[in-house]
Amino acid sequence: MKVYHLYSGGKDSSLGAWILAKLGYDVELVTVTFGILNNWRFAEETAERLGFRHRVLKMPGEILEKAGEMAIEDGHPNNAIQFIHEKALEALASLPEVERVSDGTRRDDRVPFLDLPKARSLEDRYGVAYIRPLLGLGYKTIRELVDRLFVVEIRESEKLEKADYEVELRHLLREKGIDPLTIFPRRHYQSRVLGWKEKLI
Amino acid sequence: MKVYHLYSGGKDSSLGAWILAKLGYDVELVTVTFGILNNWRFAEETAERLGFRHRVLKMPGEILEKAGEMAIEDGHPNNAIQFIHEKALEALASLPEVERVSDGTRRDDRVPFLDLPKARSLEDRYGVAYIRPLLGLGYKTIRELVDRLFVVEIRESEKLEKADYEVELRHLLREKGIDPLTIFPRRHYQSRVLGWKEKLI
Repeated sequence: MKVYHLYSGGKDSSLGAWILAKLGYDVELVTVTFGILNNWRFAEETAERLGFRHRVLKMPGEILEKAGEMAIEDGHPNNAIQFIHEKALEALASLPEVERVSDGTRRDDRVPFLDLPKARSLEDRYGVAYIRPLLGLGYKTIRELVDRLFVVEIRESEKLEKADYEVELRHLLREKGIDPLTIFPRRHYQSRVLGWKEKLI
Repeated sequence: MKVYHLYSGGKDSSLGAWILAKLGYDVELVTVTFGILNNWRFAEETAERLGFRHRVLKMPGEILEKAGEMAIEDGHPNNAIQFIHEKALEALASLPEVERVSDGTRRDDRVPFLDLPKARSLEDRYGVAYIRPLLGLGYKTIRELVDRLFVVEIRESEKLEKADYEVELRHLLREKGIDPLTIFPRRHYQSRVLGWKEKLI
């Protein structure tokens, strides 16, 4: 039972990977890149520390370009992040060897998030199962599991070495002469997993 | 990390219990009864075969009475089942020792199902975490996990020895001279877990 799990190296996608492994799945982590930066290496490094297999999925630059346009037009990154995530799931699900795709989206996430019709549509269009191990968990539950499992590094968003979509999107905006802080909300802290606190798989 | 998990002895709530145990929770199964029938014993028996602790939560008969009225008025059991499930979660969450409640509701369920505002309201009102281990799983994923884990008995709904809300609700309707088949959709088959196929906890 092999599952391909979208992975940024953050707390949520790391917790999702752990849950999948506990359920008996053979987990391969997948980090998306548009080939602009090498920040996927941070996810690769965390995957290695956690003992998971890892691959990189290169996606076409025009997806990021379109996401950048959406973010600029909206003055907010939500639709852009949602767009990239849907395209990433589709790209992964369309690989011939892939029967199960997964991600670390949570019950309390606004974006990225696939509602039920979108989740079913993804499954039907690509003939895959779409598994979201964190969907039934609230923030308290996620916090207590993360605290038990992982050593986490917390830093200011702009400084964190991370492999989520935001990093390349912010970079693209900067290249267009736009300050990402005019589009992304100021969040003081973000997190990256550094390793197991107590190895439980 | 103790969690109280609403339990009928069926596939979904049994799979939910297994997932909670795999995540490291100390699981106690809880079966609701209105004291009309002893069908909670089927859940107790299955819990014992699976090796989980089990308790019975007796709920006031007027809840079932009100559910019966709703089902009769609607000509359909959905609102009644939803009502009972919400009351069961509230009754469980209100017990002083309970910090975490759980159930086997799925992504593809229409009822019983708590939408996000209701789930958060349950957590806030009672100061509990509400965990739904199956929420992020589609029917394919649930089927493959159940097939791997459990020996399942499949029977016609009316004949199955089971401990879900339906059984006492059907009984109440019959006592009022109403044929449950005029209210419940005819489903040919329902399932009950008999034991582990391969013990994995």
